Amino acid sequence: MTHPIPPGTRDVLPDEMRELRALTDRLRAGFEDAGYGEVWTPSLEYEEVLKTGDDRAAGAGYRLFDEHGEVLAMRSDMTIPIARVVATRYGDSEPPFRFCYFAHAYREVQRGAGQQREFLQGGIELIGMTAPEGEAEVIALCLSALEQAGLRRHRLGVGDGQLYRHLLEAFEVPAERHLGLLEALSRRDLAGLEMRVSELGLGERERDLLVRLPQLRGGPEVLERADGPVADAVENLRVLNALLEERGVADRVIFDLGLVRELGYYTGAVFELYDPAVGFALGGGGRYDDLIGKFGRGLPACGIALDVQRVHMAQAAEERLQ
Amino acid sequence: MTHPIPPGTRDVLPDEMRELRALTDRLRAGFEDAGYGEVWTPSLEYEEVLKTGDDRAAGAGYRLFDEHGEVLAMRSDMTIPIARVVATRYGDSEPPFRFCYFAHAYREVQRGAGQQREFLQGGIELIGMTAPEGEAEVIALCLSALEQAGLRRHRLGVGDGQLYRHLLEAFEVPAERHLGLLEALSRRDLAGLEMRVSELGLGERERDLLVRLPQLRGGPEVLERADGPVADAVENLRVLNALLEERGVADRVIFDLGLVRELGYYTGAVFELYDPAVGFALGGGGRYDDLIGKFGRGLPACGIALDVQRVHMAQAAEERLQ
Repeated sequence: MTHPIPPGTRDVLPDEMRELRALTDRLRAGFEDAGYGEVWTPSLEYEEVLKTGDDRAAGAGYRLFDEHGEVLAMRSDMTIPIARVVATRYGDSEPPFRFCYFAHAYREVQRGAGQQREFLQGGIELIGMTAPEGEAEVIALCLSALEQAGLRRHRLGVGDGQLYRHLLEAFEVPAERHLGLLEALSRRDLAGLEMRVSELGLGERERDLLVRLPQLRGGPEVLERADGPVADAVENLRVLNALLEERGVADRVIFDLGLVRELGYYTGAVFELYDPAVGFALGGGGRYDDLIGKFGRGLPACGIALDVQRVHMAQAAEERLQ
Repeated sequence: MTHPIPPGTRDVLPDEMRELRALTDRLRAGFEDAGYGEVWTPSLEYEEVLKTGDDRAAGAGYRLFDEHGEVLAMRSDMTIPIARVVATRYGDSEPPFRFCYFAHAYREVQRGAGQQREFLQGGIELIGMTAPEGEAEVIALCLSALEQAGLRRHRLGVGDGQLYRHLLEAFEVPAERHLGLLEALSRRDLAGLEMRVSELGLGERERDLLVRLPQLRGGPEVLERADGPVADAVENLRVLNALLEERGVADRVIFDLGLVRELGYYTGAVFELYDPAVGFALGGGGRYDDLIGKFGRGLPACGIALDVQRVHMAQAAEERLQ
């Protein structure tokens, strides 16, 4: 007799659960000590409200009708709900606001991709602080929280979510071509990207830059090699690097000019977290200066979300090494 | 600009969240110290699987189709999922099993009843131990966990979920009348119950017992007053009382022969927790000896679930009194 559970979900038994609780307790303590207060929002929201933040409702995987025929969606992240909370509950308060959360999120995933549809996220949002000071604070806090959790080899990739879009606009690439190019980029499909770029009928210099830029990845020296129309755009990243050096975490940061996050609301820097023990990103985030304004209060913001189960995998691998 | 959230759900801001975390940490520590290991199960399950445990899927309030047209339901409690876990993951292990959980559950509630549709439950399940030893352990643990959490005036009501049904059968009341009588009883609608009883055409003695029994409520002396066909049935409760006295918690227990819990899977004792500061029950539970067998491994079991938000209300009221 078998009693299946939906694909992409799982049962967690006591030995693992004890470790996950210890991990989230430690991450939460780090976030709270830095002034990030924990919030909770409903698992189900009106899809219309989530769409206020992102027109694909940030990839919500589960939708249903309530008793009045309204469409509800299970939250696919905590960033949009927290943007809603800031606009509706903190309208009269003085920013910045610092929030953290530990909650499950639900997403559509490709079958067989080994990804979870229900996954526990832990993250931080820093609201009301502009670039690059905001980025430096959330990156440094996230890296130190992971170190507190026992990780030793983790790295954070930083890119600019708008860089490639700006380049496409500067080269007057037709708007209908952008999506295909950005999708190839977000899949890290460099062969596909090169093919699509070659079909654009650009000059050699432009073509070369569109193919070469996403391969610029490494220490701050890659920012020096970004010349031409990109030079100005990476200036923010250079200032960010200086701030990260001040905070003593620059050695864990990889600048990655090909980094593009899937979610639609990022307006500037984007982040991804890696550990050699885990085949997927441990988490990610970025700057979203337009999102909270869509709910009625214009405030710059950035944040990072961690996939707790993947961080736990990295933590367990680190313990085995010791 | 307003951005509503679904009725019966709520946002929890940092000051309250910090108190809720402190409360669940304390409850969890009490449960784990007593050998109850925490488990997690998916928020969404196949409705067919939940219905294996309870044919109303225990009042699941939210249902949706997955991409294959299968019906998924958000869990309405953790008892049925844990019964599934025991049968599927602990098939070869020696009972008893002791589990605890802290997870949100989702229920249909009547509009305007002030009840939450999404609510945080914390609870324990003791699997593989028969009555009344199992009841004594979970009652004593739950009462002491609430005391550790700062409650001083809490009480636990104990009844027998089968007592009234047995009485109806003994008096040969037609089966089609049972539901209406039991529903009036579970609503504590004594006037409605009396009217329905008077329509059954029973003798005075039987009629009197069916109306009087649900009003028997108090210390162990009420068990002495349960005479006639009820006398044997309350024998279990008398033995339970002796065990609770041994554990030093009998003074917090109220025997309530009219107590009937709504959920369909209880087979013996049923519990409800009260605090004078809160207008609703803080939680409840009971014995469910048939549930795990429906998933393929017949084991007796009992458990209690607490509504964490209501326990928090009682805790806050207690702090104000000091």
